[in-house]
Amino acid sequence: MINIAIIGYGNLGRGVEKAIKKNNDMTLVGIFTRRQPETVTAETAKVYSMDDLFIMKDDIDVCILCGGSATDLPKQTPELTEQFNTIDSFDTHANIPTHFDRVNKVAKQKETVSIISIGWDPGLFSVNRLYAESILPDGETLTFWGKGVSQGHSDALRRLDGVQDAIQYTIPNDAIIERLKTGESLDLTTRDKHTRECYIVLEEGADETRIREQIVTMPNYFDEYDTTIHVISQEELEKNHKQKMPHGGKVLRVGQTSAENKEVYDFSLALDSNPEFTASTLVAYARAAARLAKEERFGAYTIFDIAPSYISPFSADELRQRLL
Amino acid sequence: MINIAIIGYGNLGRGVEKAIKKNNDMTLVGIFTRRQPETVTAETAKVYSMDDLFIMKDDIDVCILCGGSATDLPKQTPELTEQFNTIDSFDTHANIPTHFDRVNKVAKQKETVSIISIGWDPGLFSVNRLYAESILPDGETLTFWGKGVSQGHSDALRRLDGVQDAIQYTIPNDAIIERLKTGESLDLTTRDKHTRECYIVLEEGADETRIREQIVTMPNYFDEYDTTIHVISQEELEKNHKQKMPHGGKVLRVGQTSAENKEVYDFSLALDSNPEFTASTLVAYARAAARLAKEERFGAYTIFDIAPSYISPFSADELRQRLL
Repeated sequence: MINIAIIGYGNLGRGVEKAIKKNNDMTLVGIFTRRQPETVTAETAKVYSMDDLFIMKDDIDVCILCGGSATDLPKQTPELTEQFNTIDSFDTHANIPTHFDRVNKVAKQKETVSIISIGWDPGLFSVNRLYAESILPDGETLTFWGKGVSQGHSDALRRLDGVQDAIQYTIPNDAIIERLKTGESLDLTTRDKHTRECYIVLEEGADETRIREQIVTMPNYFDEYDTTIHVISQEELEKNHKQKMPHGGKVLRVGQTSAENKEVYDFSLALDSNPEFTASTLVAYARAAARLAKEERFGAYTIFDIAPSYISPFSADELRQRLL
Repeated sequence: MINIAIIGYGNLGRGVEKAIKKNNDMTLVGIFTRRQPETVTAETAKVYSMDDLFIMKDDIDVCILCGGSATDLPKQTPELTEQFNTIDSFDTHANIPTHFDRVNKVAKQKETVSIISIGWDPGLFSVNRLYAESILPDGETLTFWGKGVSQGHSDALRRLDGVQDAIQYTIPNDAIIERLKTGESLDLTTRDKHTRECYIVLEEGADETRIREQIVTMPNYFDEYDTTIHVISQEELEKNHKQKMPHGGKVLRVGQTSAENKEVYDFSLALDSNPEFTASTLVAYARAAARLAKEERFGAYTIFDIAPSYISPFSADELRQRLL
């Protein structure tokens, strides 16, 4: 059994708690929080304060860090890696090299294992970009995101006079994707690649025509996109657009293997729950962290560095027989 | 530079010759054949007899074995692995465990590296089945093949009276795929998962109505499938259906991360040239074989055992910066 500690209990931590239940080679030791433990109600796990983490050190194989990338993880991952094997979903792309170097230094020194930036992007999308370009060196990779909520665009809608509430989905532009798959060479910016779908709730007496016009002409946010607007009730918004946190996207590479032949590599995710899927990925890679630690291969890793068999509970023999 | 030898020069060997040109950290030492070298015309490479392979041993880092799985590779891979690092596309799924064990024994003994069963299925499809089920343990994986030519079904069409020539494509059933993606639980056989598309050339005076009826009612081959039939000329068949060897398919896993949320994992390939894509995969993994040999990690490997970064010419630093 692999003994897991969850550090932090927001959406991601809750996802990890659920994911561990799906893996019967894993035990959840507990949830560790900086809040007062008695104020945190977990689904079924015990909640402890962060101070207890160090006391319970010998019972824990891997800490799954569920904090945010802005302030939590840059500090927490190196600190906890001093005493624990760790895994995080650090996703500030530009700062990954620095984060890696800091964690790697600690892990080598303290003889622990840390796997950073696990999830779907960075994570599964990254490894697909790597497979795709290594196998098809003559080609281009494009990443599309969505269908998923964009917080920034939702906020921009909510700031409009007469808009009571709103949610905005970013949606990959299927027409562009189909053209790319036929081998057409397109010079695309991020905005060409996506369309935008808005669900808005109007205040009483608001001028719908004016608001629609304001949205589709809003500079940077909507003016250069194909934008559709749905006016709905607050109840509908709560029920259909605030319960779930869907997301997903696509890594697409079209490459030429010869002058005559192009090959299309397409990896897509359609997620009902962004945090639950990210959590499931973290849990699978926690298994890899435990194995690497057992093999005394100390240091920091990313998804690129880990043989796929390390994330499976099955033996190499079983995998060859059943999945190859 | 990594020095590659191509063993065998059919469609796959020709694809490897093309793929090596796309990778500027690789040199093609030559093509080695059991035929008379002077009867084989390569695109640009030198052609040698198999006897020369052993003489040129010191100039070769990896042999890419391009023979067939039925009779060539079961013999050739263990034999050549006695003296060389090797890679093959052995694809008889049921015999992979035996093949692996035999090659592994030789490689460990003789201190070489061999990577077996590389391509897209087995290969990329296999590794996607592994990633998908490890991350989403509560779910089901389905593999679809096509659009691609089925030789057996094409032959069945050609055997019909009045049919001069024919090609049959197996096509994944998109309606079924869409239903699966919505989370519907379907009990499917291989035949539910695919539709069939026939291009036939009729002999002069042949009874088209009778032949169409014979095709759609043909037991096992077509009767239980959605089958479309296109009658075309021999010229069209030659031009549009015999020049290329398209194939591809999809690995689909729908998994529950909680009672409320399902996640859809979808890996798809659409290939103009099945052999050229398989060849490109072999060449990328030849890079991994060369590295593993340099690290003296001798033995046999499959795609499951190899960290993705090993197939890239870029350093770990560059990969983290650019692709993570």
